[in-house]
Amino acid sequence: MKAIRNQYLFAIALLAAMVFTSTLARAADPLPSWNDGPAKQSIVTFVEKVTTPGSPDFVPVPERIATFDNDGTLWSEKPLPVQVYFALDRVKTLAPQHPEWKTKEPFASILKGDPKGLMAGGERGLVEMIMATHTGNTTVEFEQIVKDWIATAKHPKTGKLYTEMVYQPMLEVLAYLRANGFKTFIVSGGGIEFMRPWAEQVYGIPPEQVVGSSVKTKFELRDGTPVLVRLPELNFNDDKGGKPVGINEHIGRRPVMAFGNSDGDLQMLQWTAAGTGARFALYVHHDDAAREYVYDREDALARLNKGLDEAAAKCWTVVSMKNDWKTIFPVEKK
Amino acid sequence: MKAIRNQYLFAIALLAAMVFTSTLARAADPLPSWNDGPAKQSIVTFVEKVTTPGSPDFVPVPERIATFDNDGTLWSEKPLPVQVYFALDRVKTLAPQHPEWKTKEPFASILKGDPKGLMAGGERGLVEMIMATHTGNTTVEFEQIVKDWIATAKHPKTGKLYTEMVYQPMLEVLAYLRANGFKTFIVSGGGIEFMRPWAEQVYGIPPEQVVGSSVKTKFELRDGTPVLVRLPELNFNDDKGGKPVGINEHIGRRPVMAFGNSDGDLQMLQWTAAGTGARFALYVHHDDAAREYVYDREDALARLNKGLDEAAAKCWTVVSMKNDWKTIFPVEKK
Repeated sequence: MKAIRNQYLFAIALLAAMVFTSTLARAADPLPSWNDGPAKQSIVTFVEKVTTPGSPDFVPVPERIATFDNDGTLWSEKPLPVQVYFALDRVKTLAPQHPEWKTKEPFASILKGDPKGLMAGGERGLVEMIMATHTGNTTVEFEQIVKDWIATAKHPKTGKLYTEMVYQPMLEVLAYLRANGFKTFIVSGGGIEFMRPWAEQVYGIPPEQVVGSSVKTKFELRDGTPVLVRLPELNFNDDKGGKPVGINEHIGRRPVMAFGNSDGDLQMLQWTAAGTGARFALYVHHDDAAREYVYDREDALARLNKGLDEAAAKCWTVVSMKNDWKTIFPVEKK
Repeated sequence: MKAIRNQYLFAIALLAAMVFTSTLARAADPLPSWNDGPAKQSIVTFVEKVTTPGSPDFVPVPERIATFDNDGTLWSEKPLPVQVYFALDRVKTLAPQHPEWKTKEPFASILKGDPKGLMAGGERGLVEMIMATHTGNTTVEFEQIVKDWIATAKHPKTGKLYTEMVYQPMLEVLAYLRANGFKTFIVSGGGIEFMRPWAEQVYGIPPEQVVGSSVKTKFELRDGTPVLVRLPELNFNDDKGGKPVGINEHIGRRPVMAFGNSDGDLQMLQWTAAGTGARFALYVHHDDAAREYVYDREDALARLNKGLDEAAAKCWTVVSMKNDWKTIFPVEKK
């Protein structure tokens, strides 16, 4: 009898320890870099209501899909988007093979150290530069080029690695959602093959959960070895109305939560918010001149104008980087 | 002291129970519908070597990607692929809205109950029928149409639901791989939106792990409600060289294992097998006239000719449905 009673006591102690640990886990703040306020509260309240069994808003685990824009939502996109710096560096690397670039725009301006000449050429010059610097190689070669570049390239203002210019509060949101059964996806206008080589390490987002713009590729056998060749032809532009298209094509489910920072994300947020049941849409608003950048309604590359109006009208969460975030970037590891 | 000793005994009993259960799990045959033989052995040997820590062939969990063709690999594709029956039924459903079909091929033949007229029109007739029957609606509408059809449509020969014409031995492979940390993907020439509505229930494969052919879609606001409209224009043909392209676009990693049954899968198997480290490629060979169908080198729609030669040359696994599979279809639930 005593043995049985002791077993009971032991089992009860085990249970108590489990309950206590679980309570502790709940009590720990999952978003420590967020100031208390309506933005933080809206995230936590939403996650709790869709993950609490029996809640009228409960969402089963397989349907817990959250999509995140990348540039300006997960990492800094100023003075220029990171991928533009990558392309500018590629122009310099490839210049010896392209003597004609000395007199051809936008390459001539770039090689003279005047990247503003690039912007003068508008979107067409940008696309021309992307095609010239991102294609003609195999997918395996391009992946290595990106890995090598991102390992050492530095932000022109802060001197940090670009992968250190990610937003700590958003890293916490990613981890918090995954801990609550969400699958987290990137849905970015940036190149899908530019993000995949580092997104897993930096964001914990595996390649199969990255959606982005792409060029066409072609399968070939080269001396019996299969390769995918990157062609200078746009395959998919994952921006604006393209974001719901890309979400449907890659994920095949409507997100439950979506996070963006510009009008290029508006259709993704609309598509998400229009689903049946509880949905969550959030804009990151760049209003912190001291710690990052300030831009919204008038910005040329990452305008947030219609989106701000629609967020107000539909009561979406708008994050003030200045007021809602205790820190912007991860604290440097010593 | 006695209490402490009892706790020890209890803990040891717990541990012993755990070890025993785990041994039982290992001892249980993960592929009970497979006859013992080289095909079954090749699968088990491969999975054990890539999942055993310390093995020179060990593959970390995030890289454990397995891709499966659908038609003829996971379910029956004879006399015609299931999606063709879906399209034929759609022609009949939509006919009242298309009086011109009475005299226009391939629709006229189909409406006269002569689907062979469709095949006489070759691939062009097939594509025309697919476009006419699969587009013009929204993605949400199309999903419901597929769900309604697949819930009741029956195979012309067996009278079974099509979702009962899946291969039991392959269901076991899917479950076995997932139990060993693999992510299982469909990579099919079939329509991505035709497979997603039922693939999760039937195969345990969620929508975001289905890759297939697709039509273009367009984002629109209809009275303020966002919709994705399905356009009568091919977006992607996920067959032959398109399979590695689709794998790269959707998954962004090279599979470790790939499973197919026709020359349309050859490039997927080549792409998989050419990766560094241990890789596995398998062909299902339809050689069972009594229990399913017999077809390979001469088949019009699902030829397996070059693939058989390459499998022999490269020592890929070739499954004889007749000899390697104890049962073909799941036993009916009473």
